[in-house]
Amino acid sequence: MEPVAEPRLEAWERRTDYPLTVLAVLYLGVYAVQVLATRPGQAWWWWLDAALWAVWVVFVVDYGVRVGLARRKGRFIIRHPLDLLVVAAPFFRFLRLLRLVAAISVLGRVLRDDFRGRVGSYLIVSVSLLSFVAALGVFEAERDAPDASILTFGDALWWVLTTITTVGYGDLSPVTTEGRLVAAGLMLAGIAVLGTVTAAIATWFLEQVGARDASEAVAAPPRADPADLRHAELLAELRDLRRRLDVLENAPGEAESTRARS
Amino acid sequence: MEPVAEPRLEAWERRTDYPLTVLAVLYLGVYAVQVLATRPGQAWWWWLDAALWAVWVVFVVDYGVRVGLARRKGRFIIRHPLDLLVVAAPFFRFLRLLRLVAAISVLGRVLRDDFRGRVGSYLIVSVSLLSFVAALGVFEAERDAPDASILTFGDALWWVLTTITTVGYGDLSPVTTEGRLVAAGLMLAGIAVLGTVTAAIATWFLEQVGARDASEAVAAPPRADPADLRHAELLAELRDLRRRLDVLENAPGEAESTRARS
Amino acid sequence: MEPVAEPRLEAWERRTDYPLTVLAVLYLGVYAVQVLATRPGQAWWWWLDAALWAVWVVFVVDYGVRVGLARRKGRFIIRHPLDLLVVAAPFFRFLRLLRLVAAISVLGRVLRDDFRGRVGSYLIVSVSLLSFVAALGVFEAERDAPDASILTFGDALWWVLTTITTVGYGDLSPVTTEGRLVAAGLMLAGIAVLGTVTAAIATWFLEQVGARDASEAVAAPPRADPADLRHAELLAELRDLRRRLDVLENAPGEAESTRARS
Amino acid sequence: MEPVAEPRLEAWERRTDYPLTVLAVLYLGVYAVQVLATRPGQAWWWWLDAALWAVWVVFVVDYGVRVGLARRKGRFIIRHPLDLLVVAAPFFRFLRLLRLVAAISVLGRVLRDDFRGRVGSYLIVSVSLLSFVAALGVFEAERDAPDASILTFGDALWWVLTTITTVGYGDLSPVTTEGRLVAAGLMLAGIAVLGTVTAAIATWFLEQVGARDASEAVAAPPRADPADLRHAELLAELRDLRRRLDVLENAPGEAESTRARS
Repeated sequence: MEPVAEPRLEAWERRTDYPLTVLAVLYLGVYAVQVLATRPGQAWWWWLDAALWAVWVVFVVDYGVRVGLARRKGRFIIRHPLDLLVVAAPFFRFLRLLRLVAAISVLGRVLRDDFRGRVGSYLIVSVSLLSFVAALGVFEAERDAPDASILTFGDALWWVLTTITTVGYGDLSPVTTEGRLVAAGLMLAGIAVLGTVTAAIATWFLEQVGARDASEAVAAPPRADPADLRHAELLAELRDLRRRLDVLENAPGEAESTRARS
Repeated sequence: MEPVAEPRLEAWERRTDYPLTVLAVLYLGVYAVQVLATRPGQAWWWWLDAALWAVWVVFVVDYGVRVGLARRKGRFIIRHPLDLLVVAAPFFRFLRLLRLVAAISVLGRVLRDDFRGRVGSYLIVSVSLLSFVAALGVFEAERDAPDASILTFGDALWWVLTTITTVGYGDLSPVTTEGRLVAAGLMLAGIAVLGTVTAAIATWFLEQVGARDASEAVAAPPRADPADLRHAELLAELRDLRRRLDVLENAPGEAESTRARS
Repeated sequence: MEPVAEPRLEAWERRTDYPLTVLAVLYLGVYAVQVLATRPGQAWWWWLDAALWAVWVVFVVDYGVRVGLARRKGRFIIRHPLDLLVVAAPFFRFLRLLRLVAAISVLGRVLRDDFRGRVGSYLIVSVSLLSFVAALGVFEAERDAPDASILTFGDALWWVLTTITTVGYGDLSPVTTEGRLVAAGLMLAGIAVLGTVTAAIATWFLEQVGARDASEAVAAPPRADPADLRHAELLAELRDLRRRLDVLENAPGEAESTRARS
Repeated sequence: MEPVAEPRLEAWERRTDYPLTVLAVLYLGVYAVQVLATRPGQAWWWWLDAALWAVWVVFVVDYGVRVGLARRKGRFIIRHPLDLLVVAAPFFRFLRLLRLVAAISVLGRVLRDDFRGRVGSYLIVSVSLLSFVAALGVFEAERDAPDASILTFGDALWWVLTTITTVGYGDLSPVTTEGRLVAAGLMLAGIAVLGTVTAAIATWFLEQVGARDASEAVAAPPRADPADLRHAELLAELRDLRRRLDVLENAPGEAESTRARS
């Protein structure tokens, strides 16, 4: 699958990347305020909800433009399932926060640029953001559900922690469909986190071991390089030839002088 | 254990691989319909059950033929425990779906062919298939059991998710023997999934780090290659020799002229 | 910490390794029969218990001899904590099965000898053995405890599975001290199993990726080796010199002839 | 982010490292005695509490001095969040034990110095210490809480084990905020432990596989080094030239003799 040049699409994404990220962060803020500070039915709740719908419309427009600009539209849609999900599931308001994945990548870009440092930064930023978002989502989904166990935002944060680390006490667990969708995302994220941490440590180990071997190699007595030995042999041959030629060059000269004497 | 050539067995497996895979997929479909849409005792249920038994007979015949074609029959049986399980445990209808492992490998074969892409495709396809199959199996096993906690197919899917990610809330867990067999398979699969994800990330990391080192090496000022230095030295020697020989060749000519003059 | 030669100790261990392993396997058999088929107070139970104590005495004697043969006794004791545990905790009959760790290594030795195969065999053999032993231990510890949840051997096996895979539903969990010691061992083993599986997959991945790169390297058009280029240059120089010398050698001959004509 | 030289800060830390570590160990001892042997309201409890506060004051002074000595104070504070936590949260007495992280590093320093050995030692020492400290912290936080499940120190140790291995039965789980903070630290530690164990095993595997390949390479028949072949060719050329020159050198001599005869 050779990459296809999508100049116009990429230009659009370059231009809209930051504003949309800012918008997504605002969305998160408004969403958090709505979930934590207001309740459905209050006047404020309606205003905030309207704002969230407005942001969603912007996301839909952005998605439409990108599909329109893409040369291979089918491929674009297949390659961007999260964006499709954001647009296609308007009533899972929680899902719109998927747009924050872009925010994470932007944050990652402005962070320190050595590989390990970037991995660490990504991990911390994305796990924190994901945990907060998931806690909001599960709290909103569960708090009014019958026989739910996650009733406060503190419970939601605690449940997120036990889930993303795959500990899973089960003292709290979601009972609604939306809450379980959040859980599904969290568990997959948890596996990715475990894998990333392990991989980072393993990479570091291998470098350590490699470094140690290297230092041992340095410590070892420097054995002669075969290439140098071969070189010395050729050089000796050539120097010998030169010596012979020195003699040879003077020989004819003598011959002249002897002939001159006769 | 050097591999043994099994030409006839391999020929048979090449010929029957696709049809049996299609059959296994059909089996899954019929099984799903029977489990989700009908109940024991209904007329439909009996028809579907007959179809499932028919497929099982085909599997038994296939297994028998393969044992018959294998040169080292004992080794074949030991090396294909899953197939034996399918044939030997006719009343664990669920187990027949193990034949789908072949379906996965076929699917894997038709998928993109770079290593990482193939691993990813295998992982997604097999985990999705496994989860669906396990949910069907545990749902069928548990739904009518006394004091079971998995009562709907949604519960079954949720339980599969918590199990394969090794989160294991325990809000739902199987109580029947067949349900626990399904769980055992899922947990082992979960470990394999965790391991594969981690390994994939670690491989990617190591390549990144390697690439970074490489780029640094490129960035570094190109220090002289000792081989080039040795080469230059030899070449200088040879060029010197040639110069001397040029002189030498003309010398005898002079000698002629001088002799001519005398 | 340079290794210390312990010729007499090693000789003893070589001689006693197999018999003690057989004894440990017998111990497991007797222990299993006692736990699963008899109950304290029955005549049979006492006979089996006497046999178990007899085996323990043998282990104590073996340990004493090994300490006696070891040159650096303190170091030996520190390096063999499991053996010390077996000897020092006579009333945790379960712990004596730690001696089976030796059995596993012996089994491993007789198994196929390529690295990956050996790792796989170790893993399967030791995990199966460990699970069975742990199930016996926790079953014996829990079955008569007040408000215990593990009441049948089937429960014990199921609990072992949920624990060693770190899923940990918590539908069953030990409540006695001895049961929790068993659990501690299982959980640590579970981490080791997860780690080993992941490591094996990662190693395989890295080899795959390496192999792929290698094959690509082969596929790539063979670019000229700088060493060959340098070599060709030197050779050209030398061949030129030879040509010149051919001319030079014939020149004096001519000179003779000319002189002869004068 | 190039490291900044902090000579005075480092000098201070070198000087205070050991004493503060000893102090932290003492703190742990006093804290353990207070939690396990006394109850709030008893005279002893007050004396021990005073001692703990005194140690905390020392930590605060040390932190203040280090901030004062640091050239880039903001960076120092950002880079030492744990120390800040110790100082800023005086009423989470548990958190002061974070200072023991230094103790672990000191212990690590005095331990065996090959890489793998050090990793293993760190792992064992830090996991044991962490588990004990976490058990103390969660026990103190939970034991008097309404509807808490962790009521004895044994329960606390068992809960720590199920949490750090990410098994998470959920038969016991903290309900207080401080208990859940302890749990958060433990779960993150658990992920790190899993990752470290896996990474260590993977590193060992890769070395095994590498070693095996190396030994195979040694076993393989030594194929001719192209460099040697090239070298031999050049040498043959040069030896040929020398032979020619030998002839050439004697030729003029003959010429003389012939001339002398005429």
